[in-house]
Amino acid sequence: MAPRNTEQRTRDVRQKLRNEVDLWVASAGGEGDAYLVPLSFYWDGARLILATPANSRTARNLRRAGEARLALGTTRDVVILEGPVTFITRDVIDDALATAHAQKTGFNPRQITEEYVYIQVIPQMIQAWREADELSGRFVMRDGRWLVGDGENGDAMDTIAAVPAGQSA
Amino acid sequence: MAPRNTEQRTRDVRQKLRNEVDLWVASAGGEGDAYLVPLSFYWDGARLILATPANSRTARNLRRAGEARLALGTTRDVVILEGPVTFITRDVIDDALATAHAQKTGFNPRQITEEYVYIQVIPQMIQAWREADELSGRFVMRDGRWLVGDGENGDAMDTIAAVPAGQSA
Repeated sequence: MAPRNTEQRTRDVRQKLRNEVDLWVASAGGEGDAYLVPLSFYWDGARLILATPANSRTARNLRRAGEARLALGTTRDVVILEGPVTFITRDVIDDALATAHAQKTGFNPRQITEEYVYIQVIPQMIQAWREADELSGRFVMRDGRWLVGDGENGDAMDTIAAVPAGQSA
Repeated sequence: MAPRNTEQRTRDVRQKLRNEVDLWVASAGGEGDAYLVPLSFYWDGARLILATPANSRTARNLRRAGEARLALGTTRDVVILEGPVTFITRDVIDDALATAHAQKTGFNPRQITEEYVYIQVIPQMIQAWREADELSGRFVMRDGRWLVGDGENGDAMDTIAAVPAGQSA
């Protein structure tokens, strides 16, 4: 199978962001002790919303670092995302956003006795690759901008499907 | 589906270690900047062998930290491992081990122009869970010891299959 072009990778990334339920969250303490857990997420087209106990190791690490590195998909169909994190407490999160998160992930952090916190990640860098032959050209977003199409808008993005393969939009 | 007992999880973990080709490697720099990549690995029954460019960010992070946190499988069928890392240069690695690694992973770091290094991880802690109902009882190894069976020896381990479910060996 030939390496995917940026258009195809972008479509695949957006599809994964819509359809996948979990991702891997890497984080680290201030002394460089790495941590890694899977968490569920909701993607609203521009940001990912995670939720985790407010005092969990991941929450503490991300609060300190201020940014997250996330991985979606499998080790042979990788999507890597990096971006700054914003913590949103349960009492101030937008109700529609929290509802969408609960519907997508199947759990509602607002109904859990333990204190949970929402974590918003706005990706600034996204890479997508399958095998070694796709390492070249793996960036689909840099500096918060999709390299192809208007990634901020799902409808605009869908028009990319009409672009012939190999032809840059 | 009922939560798996420790015997079943241990069997599943060992099967994944034998059969999976890649895992997720979390690492961090000395200032707590987390990193995450997929790498291929070989499991010889007691240790994992990875290989990566000697000057890659993962190699530099792991060399500094001296230990790794790894994840196998999917976000809904998780195996998490932690253990100390040892770096083994290409000129001193055991030939049979390097050959087994190449056969398993499909690439031979000894034949690559760029300087690669092997990284040995001897797990001291292993957890396995699928869904939230399996978070309890997720440890299958602590302090380098399998909680059930003789994990150092694949043959001994196989006898666990004869232990009735729910009955601890």
